[in-house]
Amino acid sequence: MFKKILIANRGEIALRVIRTCKEMGIKTVAVYSTADKDSLHVKFADEAVCIGKPASIDSYLNIPHIMAAVEITNADAIHPGYGFLAENAKFAQICTDHGIKFIGPTPEMINSMGDKITAKETMIKAGVPVVPGGEGLLQSVDHAKGLAREIGYPVILKATAGGGGKGMRVVWEEKDIEKAFDNAKTEAAASFKNDGIYMEKFVEEPRHIEIQIAGDQFGNVCHLSERDCSIQRRHQKLVEESPSPFMTPELREKMGEAAIKAASAINYESVGTIEFLVDKHRNFYFMEMNTRIQVEHCVTEEVVNYDLIKEQIKIAFGESISGRNYYPEMHAIECRINAEDPYNDFRPSPGRITVLHQPGGHGVRVDSHVYAGYVIPPYYDSMIGKLIAVAQTRDEAINTMSRALSEYVIEGIKTTIPFHKKLMKNESFRSGNFTTKFLESFKME
Amino acid sequence: MFKKILIANRGEIALRVIRTCKEMGIKTVAVYSTADKDSLHVKFADEAVCIGKPASIDSYLNIPHIMAAVEITNADAIHPGYGFLAENAKFAQICTDHGIKFIGPTPEMINSMGDKITAKETMIKAGVPVVPGGEGLLQSVDHAKGLAREIGYPVILKATAGGGGKGMRVVWEEKDIEKAFDNAKTEAAASFKNDGIYMEKFVEEPRHIEIQIAGDQFGNVCHLSERDCSIQRRHQKLVEESPSPFMTPELREKMGEAAIKAASAINYESVGTIEFLVDKHRNFYFMEMNTRIQVEHCVTEEVVNYDLIKEQIKIAFGESISGRNYYPEMHAIECRINAEDPYNDFRPSPGRITVLHQPGGHGVRVDSHVYAGYVIPPYYDSMIGKLIAVAQTRDEAINTMSRALSEYVIEGIKTTIPFHKKLMKNESFRSGNFTTKFLESFKME
Repeated sequence: MFKKILIANRGEIALRVIRTCKEMGIKTVAVYSTADKDSLHVKFADEAVCIGKPASIDSYLNIPHIMAAVEITNADAIHPGYGFLAENAKFAQICTDHGIKFIGPTPEMINSMGDKITAKETMIKAGVPVVPGGEGLLQSVDHAKGLAREIGYPVILKATAGGGGKGMRVVWEEKDIEKAFDNAKTEAAASFKNDGIYMEKFVEEPRHIEIQIAGDQFGNVCHLSERDCSIQRRHQKLVEESPSPFMTPELREKMGEAAIKAASAINYESVGTIEFLVDKHRNFYFMEMNTRIQVEHCVTEEVVNYDLIKEQIKIAFGESISGRNYYPEMHAIECRINAEDPYNDFRPSPGRITVLHQPGGHGVRVDSHVYAGYVIPPYYDSMIGKLIAVAQTRDEAINTMSRALSEYVIEGIKTTIPFHKKLMKNESFRSGNFTTKFLESFKME
Repeated sequence: MFKKILIANRGEIALRVIRTCKEMGIKTVAVYSTADKDSLHVKFADEAVCIGKPASIDSYLNIPHIMAAVEITNADAIHPGYGFLAENAKFAQICTDHGIKFIGPTPEMINSMGDKITAKETMIKAGVPVVPGGEGLLQSVDHAKGLAREIGYPVILKATAGGGGKGMRVVWEEKDIEKAFDNAKTEAAASFKNDGIYMEKFVEEPRHIEIQIAGDQFGNVCHLSERDCSIQRRHQKLVEESPSPFMTPELREKMGEAAIKAASAINYESVGTIEFLVDKHRNFYFMEMNTRIQVEHCVTEEVVNYDLIKEQIKIAFGESISGRNYYPEMHAIECRINAEDPYNDFRPSPGRITVLHQPGGHGVRVDSHVYAGYVIPPYYDSMIGKLIAVAQTRDEAINTMSRALSEYVIEGIKTTIPFHKKLMKNESFRSGNFTTKFLESFKME
């Protein structure tokens, strides 16, 4: 096994990796910017090396500094965590070139999924469903009609230069397409000075459901079932759970198979995630593949009894996995505890934590790098912890989460705890009946 | 379901009960002595009533004060926790007389197991093995020889007025019994001015292994497998685990059946524990039955996925259990975190906790009622928390425990954390090869 792993990251994920390394008897090296010298990931690692100034570009994204830290500490592997350099093929290549094991997939695998167009083409070849349409601008109303017949209604017209809903039109029937085409073009021209529009299948009542997978260098690939991450605010996940309340055993089999196809198509080696959009008819479409560990990996760990970081390290070392799939035996929910003010548009709230009391007891897991007296630096992601509740059923998991949130005391800064408390009482959330649009209409007051 | 439960206890078990009540939507009432006004069980309950001065006799053992608290808060049930009034049949009777549900067995059941002689007779009738011997004083060497042949060697001679090993002799063969008889009598006379001695089967290399059971009012009884509590210091448990490293599937079946017989013999209704001594030949002998929840119930909860407090409350309300038995699917270890100095004969170390940081992450559960700034009063039990580690195997659970202990920071007082750290590295402990005598030769330095 590896002797010493350098964790090229910070915060809770660095601590997460250190925990598993300690349990495996592997020494750890933390790296830190000057802003992070008091973080727990620094205190709990066997060694720690300062790699630069607060700005990420000077520290956590600074490859020469990180490679220097590897050299002086004699680490034999690097865990990239998530974010920063986790999906940087160049960094993975540099590690390899220096004889340091990058704990993740090869640079080629990262590249093949890093570019959205290549990834989509690869998935189509592998037989993984993608959102139909999207290729090329619409030349005329007839072109649009023909394409819509191929794709099937409803479709959505989007401005190629677009964003913010401008130049977008959902079309449910052919009789409406001409008007929609004209309006979209006019609006696109007015908004972006570019009237180019393209067409995609409109995904009705979309849910974000992703499949965790693991693969080894011997070609074994398995899935570990799904996570539902539909509770998002401006594409930022806030709550994740497994299993998805929308899932059926049949859909899980189909999505699991598709995820395995996707990973196998690139001979994927490491743990990874295939993100899908699922519509109200339970059609699912590939969105992207994350070639790294994800923030929300904990809910999977809790429901399938599997230490994903441990397996990731073992796979990187060359061990094989069984190849059997894993199915949820419990229900787990994760709330992201961010230093943000949910009463003020989730504005970041860095500063000193004056009082901290973490919840405990049966069915509660806390992953956090902060402590009483810790000062949250303003330079990085605002997540300061993850609270995970596990129980036999979804209802019970929500009740355990509510109870745990009621015990969580963080003073000195604003956090997302009041948001989560309110969400856990929300009828739509409790019923399991929500889409990625849910938070758009969610009110704190 | 009950509307409001008063918890007639303090500390971590009071908080434990509050947690489950919150998850079940039941209101809670905390009671507290003046010494406990700042305890978390007071802060986290829906209501709290001061029931008297610090001495237990004036508060947690004061039945009129507790019944007054029930009356003013209109609680419809009482959870007694463990210790204090948990096995007080009179208290259970008073609750019943006042139309308040005592969450536990009936006064008759408590009584039948509260007296050791009656309990032993009941077990013999029910066909549950007890330590042979022990009835009546030995009249002569010949009487001793006859009894020893019946019981089978080895036997132990004990002074009826005894304690501390005085007047005790283990006899392995008949040829040694005469000398042992004379020596034990002489030593007993010298030590206690009473030369009465009796004989019991000598339990070789004893382990303390207990079986968790649950029974309902409809006659359904199940077992939830075992806990090994052999790591004791002067009969105080310090570490508990499930499953026992000494267990075999066959022995588990036999002990489980015996435990169910024991509980069924008194039509037991609630959760409870049958404690056994197990010798090196895997013979097991009934020691006693605890008619209450136990400190170490958490390890069972973690390995069989069962909230024992929730089931206890549901049974008290009149719900039925399935009657199926539960078998460990994981391995869990609990370390008792006591405010004691392991370097100074485990002397209690009350006082203010100046810094507190609790461990977290995968496989770690913390049950504790303390926080930074909390002052541990000198009046009660010194336990300030329980740290539970769960993993797929015993080795992994020990590694997770070691890792969690390394993160646990408690400053201002002495704790048992250094003891546990050392124990987790001990070869005998790691091998699973230890008896109740293990800590007698364990050295901190």
